[in-house]
Formats: sequence, C-alpha cells, structure tokens
Amino acid sequence: MTDTDSLQDLVAACKAASRQVAGLSTDVKNRALGRMADALVAHETAILEANARDLDAAAERGLSDAMTDRLRLTPERIQKMADALGEVAGFDDPVGQVSDVRRRPSGIEVGRMRVPLGVIAMIYEARPNVTSDAAGLCFKAGNAVVLRGGSEAAWSNRAVAAALHDALAAEGLDPAAVTLVPTTDRDAIKDLVRMSDHLDLVIPRGGEGLIRFVDEHSRVPVIKHYKGVCHLFVDETADLDVALDLLLDGKLSRPGVCNALETLLVHESVAAGFLPRAHAELAANGGEMRGDETTRQILGGGVAPATDDDYHAEYLAPIVAVRVVDGLDAALDHVARYGSQHTEVIATESVGSARRWVREVDASVVLVNASSRFSDGGELGLGAEIGISTTKLHAFGPMGLEALTTQKFVVHGAGETRHAVPPRAS
Amino acid sequence: MTDTDSLQDLVAACKAASRQVAGLSTDVKNRALGRMADALVAHETAILEANARDLDAAAERGLSDAMTDRLRLTPERIQKMADALGEVAGFDDPVGQVSDVRRRPSGIEVGRMRVPLGVIAMIYEARPNVTSDAAGLCFKAGNAVVLRGGSEAAWSNRAVAAALHDALAAEGLDPAAVTLVPTTDRDAIKDLVRMSDHLDLVIPRGGEGLIRFVDEHSRVPVIKHYKGVCHLFVDETADLDVALDLLLDGKLSRPGVCNALETLLVHESVAAGFLPRAHAELAANGGEMRGDETTRQILGGGVAPATDDDYHAEYLAPIVAVRVVDGLDAALDHVARYGSQHTEVIATESVGSARRWVREVDASVVLVNASSRFSDGGELGLGAEIGISTTKLHAFGPMGLEALTTQKFVVHGAGETRHAVPPRAS
Repeated sequence: MTDTDSLQDLVAACKAASRQVAGLSTDVKNRALGRMADALVAHETAILEANARDLDAAAERGLSDAMTDRLRLTPERIQKMADALGEVAGFDDPVGQVSDVRRRPSGIEVGRMRVPLGVIAMIYEARPNVTSDAAGLCFKAGNAVVLRGGSEAAWSNRAVAAALHDALAAEGLDPAAVTLVPTTDRDAIKDLVRMSDHLDLVIPRGGEGLIRFVDEHSRVPVIKHYKGVCHLFVDETADLDVALDLLLDGKLSRPGVCNALETLLVHESVAAGFLPRAHAELAANGGEMRGDETTRQILGGGVAPATDDDYHAEYLAPIVAVRVVDGLDAALDHVARYGSQHTEVIATESVGSARRWVREVDASVVLVNASSRFSDGGELGLGAEIGISTTKLHAFGPMGLEALTTQKFVVHGAGETRHAVPPRAS
Repeated sequence: MTDTDSLQDLVAACKAASRQVAGLSTDVKNRALGRMADALVAHETAILEANARDLDAAAERGLSDAMTDRLRLTPERIQKMADALGEVAGFDDPVGQVSDVRRRPSGIEVGRMRVPLGVIAMIYEARPNVTSDAAGLCFKAGNAVVLRGGSEAAWSNRAVAAALHDALAAEGLDPAAVTLVPTTDRDAIKDLVRMSDHLDLVIPRGGEGLIRFVDEHSRVPVIKHYKGVCHLFVDETADLDVALDLLLDGKLSRPGVCNALETLLVHESVAAGFLPRAHAELAANGGEMRGDETTRQILGGGVAPATDDDYHAEYLAPIVAVRVVDGLDAALDHVARYGSQHTEVIATESVGSARRWVREVDASVVLVNASSRFSDGGELGLGAEIGISTTKLHAFGPMGLEALTTQKFVVHGAGETRHAVPPRAS
C-alpha cells in the first residue's frame, strides 16, 4: 500500500463519518464538544510529553524563538484550548436554520435550509491549538474535518487528536469525524487537495507560501486569507482626536496581525494639523513613519521617504506609510490600487464621505470612525473565527460558523407538476 | 505582442471597467439593460448575417442537427434575447442591500452589505443567446463580465456583443464592462482562467469535458454544474396518483435537462400496486424502464435489467432506472451513493418521512410531493438563473442574481478602539 492509498483511506473514512456528523442534534454536538474539552485536560500529561518531543526537535533544528513560542504548550494553554471548545458549544448552531420561505405561484412552498458543507480540510503550520480549535468549529457546523498540521508540531497534534478521539468515542461517535493526517511532507498536501470526491473545502492557515502552494495544487475549492494592507483615511472633516485614537490602536495595539494599519492617508487640508501630532504620538510609543514628499515637508527631516513598496507593504511592525491626498477620490484611488480588500477605515464627520467610503471601498470590512482592529470574527459578532477570507467567493472577510455551512433549497408541495401531465392511459 | 498579452489587456480593461459598474445606481443599470434590449433588435440584420456565417461553417464541418439548432438565430429568438434583458431590468437589485445590522458590546454597529463580485468570466459553448443573457445578469448584479463563447458561434457572438457595446456607450458607460474574448481556442481558456489578479469567478457552461477542463486549469474560483442524477422515492404512504404525476412530469416533460428524473425508488410495500401503473403510463408516452430483480418480477419479462451503470446514469432520454427498496433508510442510502447532490424528490404522506428526507438528503434541492422539474431559478423564485451549482461553496443549486454577489461587513462607530490607546504624549 502506498502512502497515497493510506491517505485516501483515511480521507474516505472521514467522508463516511461526515454523514453521521451532519445529522447530529445540537445537544449531542454540544455534549461531544464538552467531552473534547474535558479530554484535553485529562490528557494533559500525554500532550505535554508529546509537545516536549516537538520542542526538542525544534531546538535541534534551530527553530526561531517566535516559532518555538507558538509551538509550546503549557497547562494554561491546554486549559485555554479546552475553554475555546466550551465556548464553541455555547454558540448558536447554524445547521437546520430555514429562511426565505415563500409560496410560489405554482403552489409550491420554497425555503432555504442551512446545511453542513461536508468534509473540510484544514492545512496549517506550527500552532498545535489549531488542531482543537478547527476541529471544534468544523464539528459544531456539522462537518467532518481532515487536519494536516505542520511537521514541527507532529507529536503534539497527534496527542491532541488522541484526546479528541477519546471524547468522540465516549459519545458513541465515529472518531474519523476528526481525522489527523499523520504524514507532514508537502507531497501529502498535494495528494490531499486533489481528493475532490471526498473534500468540500480546503482552508490553508499559515504563511503566503503555504497558501499559494495549496491553491496551486488544489482541485477542491480553497478559501484563502492573504495579507492585510489596511488603510486609515483622515478626511478633511475628521475629528482629529478620533483619528489619532484609530491610528494608535490600529498600528500599535498589535502590529503583527493582519487587521493592523499599514498606511495612513491624510486629507491635505488637515495634514499640517494632524501629522505632527500623529508623528509625535507614534514616536512616543515606538512607532515610525515613512512619508511622501508633502508629509516630509510638514514633518521636517526626521521621516524616511515612502516608496511604492512601502504602500504595498504589510509591515507586521510598528511602521506606517503616510501619504497626503487632495481629497476623498484620491484616497479611494489609493486604496483601490494598493489595498488588499481586507479592512479599510475612514475618520470623518461628513455623512457624505462616510457613505461613499462604505459604498465604494472594495474590502471585506469597511469602517467609519472605528478601529481596523475590530475586523475580527469575535468583535463583529460571529462568535468564533476560523479565518479571514480575502477572496470574495462563499465568504469574504472574517468567517464564523455560518461560513462553514451552505444552504439547500427545500420545497414542499401537494403533488404540483411543472407541466400538465399526459392524460392517464388506463 | 503575443495572444496572451492581448488577452491580458482585454481582461485588464474589463477589470478597470468593473469599478464603474459596481458603483452604478439601479436606475442607470436598468436603463442600460433597456438600451441593450433595444440594440439587439436594432442590430437584427447584422446579427442574422453573422449567424448565417456561423451556420455555413457549421454545415461545412457537419455539426449535428441538435447543435445547429442551438446555434441558429431567428428574428423571434433575437426578440426573446431582448425580452430576457428587459426581464432582468425588472428584477430586484441585490447590490447595496444591508442586513443583520446589530450593535456590538464595544459600541460599534455592524451590518453586512451585498456587493458585486467584480469580474466574472463566463465560458460557454454553442448558444449565442448566452452572450446577452450572461451579460445582462452579471451587469445587473454590478459585475463586469468576460465572455468566451464557442468557436461555432464566433461571428454571432461578436455581432451580439457589438450591439451590447453600442448600448453601453449610448448610456455613457465603458463598453469593456462586457468584454468578448475574440479567440476561441482552448489555450485561450487556459490563459484566461489563470488570471486570478483580474477575475473573481469563472462559470463554465457546457458539457462535462469543458467544465473539467476549466476546473483543471483554473486559478480562479470555479462554480461547476455537473450532471443531475435525480431520484423520486415513492414511500409506503405515498399518494400513488401524486407519485405518478411526479414521475411523468419529472421524466417526460423534458428528458434532456438536468432536473429530469433518472431513477425511481419504490417502497416494497407499494411496489406491486404502483409499478404496473407507472410502467403502463410511461410506455404509453414513449418512456422506458430498466429494473432490478424485484421490479422485473412484478412487471414480467418486458423490462430490461438495471445495472450499476444505470443507477449512475444521466440518461437525457425517456428512460428510468427502477429499484424496489425495503424502506426510507435504503432509499436514503441509494441516494447518498448514486445521487449527484442536485435534486431529490420524495412522494409521501408521512410527516416523519418528509422530515427525514428534507433533513438527511444531501442535495441542492430537496422536494416533498413536488416535481423535480421545479429545481430551476425561475420556479424557485430567484428571478433568473445563471446556472445550477452542484458544488457547495458560495452557491449550491440554482443560482440567481444574489449568487453573483457577495457580502462585506460595514461598521459604523464613534471613535471606538479595540484596546485602550496609550495616554497622549503631548
């Protein structure tokens, strides 16, 4: 038996289990999620031992401190993973919701029922908590899940999956509903994402290289989340204190995330009043500006010039590129050219500017007088978040449980036919 | 300049036009659709001349009668194309609809606004009416469209597109919003569907070969509509007159379409009562049965045996495969194994069986006591239909205007930040 065969068998078993998961009542799913949470805590020793093996291997391979930290589990982190599963149990179950029911002229009654997607493959990198987080969200939405974690976390992921399997079995459910792919080489990803007969969706979580690799080889629909190049436009009517708050929260509260601000656009009529304050506040908090010619004239020599690359950059650092623009149109043009369709903010007191921003900016989250950092499933009210889609198909922006489902049409009739049936022969 | 370059230029121009289309008011879009309808009629002579060239070429190449009929345009058919554009003008505009608005604990107000996808590529075969139908639907939903028709209809498509361009220009709009790709070779499809920077969605319409080819090469999300292997299950409590109507309408009213019935499943307790009548009525109307052992025992020698291939078949002909099953579970298992997730019907008077069918059948349209032929955008109330998706991502089942849009999050605040901002330095 080749590796592809055994992978195929694993995924086929997951597909078979998906029919069971799709039919579970909310109560059973929530009880199983509670058991999964308990099992993580009960398996703490085994999970920490497995994690220690991964950490040893990481040290040998000279993994960076940041990566090692992501990989590391502690009793507290295991408790957080368990708590997250408990939270998922508390979310509304989207499966079975029926909407848009109406009677048609033909007499039939048509509605749309929310149903699971089927089997979702998650492909991710070092963080072992994704194993339980993704399993919980997919399961609550009635899906089976194939998990393919990174090689750095191979032992940890197996130990976490073993705990989840115990919980499923204790609830009398098929453990294949949560299937961990044991091989961690890239060829296995290629084989996996070609299994369009068994998989309904692939979600890669990780660096741009991983996402592009998956997208390049997949025959299954992929939901991608690429970088966020998020802008704040300070309009001529902006409340400059509000604008400053949005800049500081957006850029400094967590510079390494995708909903952090990268570029500040300032209306020329408020540039001289706003930029010196913004520069001083950023500098006082470890931030840095790179500016266009006008910005540098206003601020004097201390600001490095911003190049075209700067306007394209997702810095993941407390740096902000600055451009002074002559109005809303120029700001919209800049965002259309450099934006990543992720998250875009305007600070304005003008109802007209707010309306145009909301309508005309092509991004998954557009905000008026609110921080880009609210572009997050929890903050927007989705409950949980399994990713932030930067593609427009199926889901655009933060994805919660509903994005892990689809809708089918449900029709009730009393024998209606579309055409008159032929008169009976007998 | 290579062909790929010029294709790239065309698609880039379409992408540039998409920003204009996305921002148009409903009134302007409807007026432009009216102008498109008028232009088709005004260009009738040119369109018929172009169509004659395609028909000559078809005759030379010995195109089948069915294909030639699909290709042929007449004044009546051109009028129908114009009427269809007029109908699209009458549909509700999904763009700009805001739903699910709620205040979050942080104070921000979050809603979801329906927005165009951007640029949609339609790849289709012989029917020139798809050129105006697809252009009208994509345009009404605020999208620009790249049309790549088949070589058989190359002249006709160009003449239709020229009429649409005149109408767009007369309304002061960029004609690139409806872009016809002039090359019709398959390599051009390959180049086209790799332009993920410019395209948001690809919809192939045509045979399974075309769809698989597009799916294999696309780097852009593809919505597929494969075959429909649709079942009617006659439950033990079925009203047999209703069941017979559903069978005759489902199988005979138009056997060549994807929502026609292919397989009849009959509960064993009503098989002896139902099958002889069904067989007689089908036979009286040119239909044919292929049956399992039990069916053939009930009906005697005149029925050919049904093989596994029959249960997988989309006949596109007045043939129905028949199987007698021992209950709802066996029917559900058969549908899970052989169904194509398209359209599935139960005839039953049992509320319990109806409920299980609706919940447990994994198909885009599930019907109780209503004909499979209602699985159609117009009949289900979507207004128009641009296809029937058999994949679950983004759209599942008949796709109307809404399926040509997505939703973005819109947030209004009063300066809220996610974290407390640092105290002012100055």
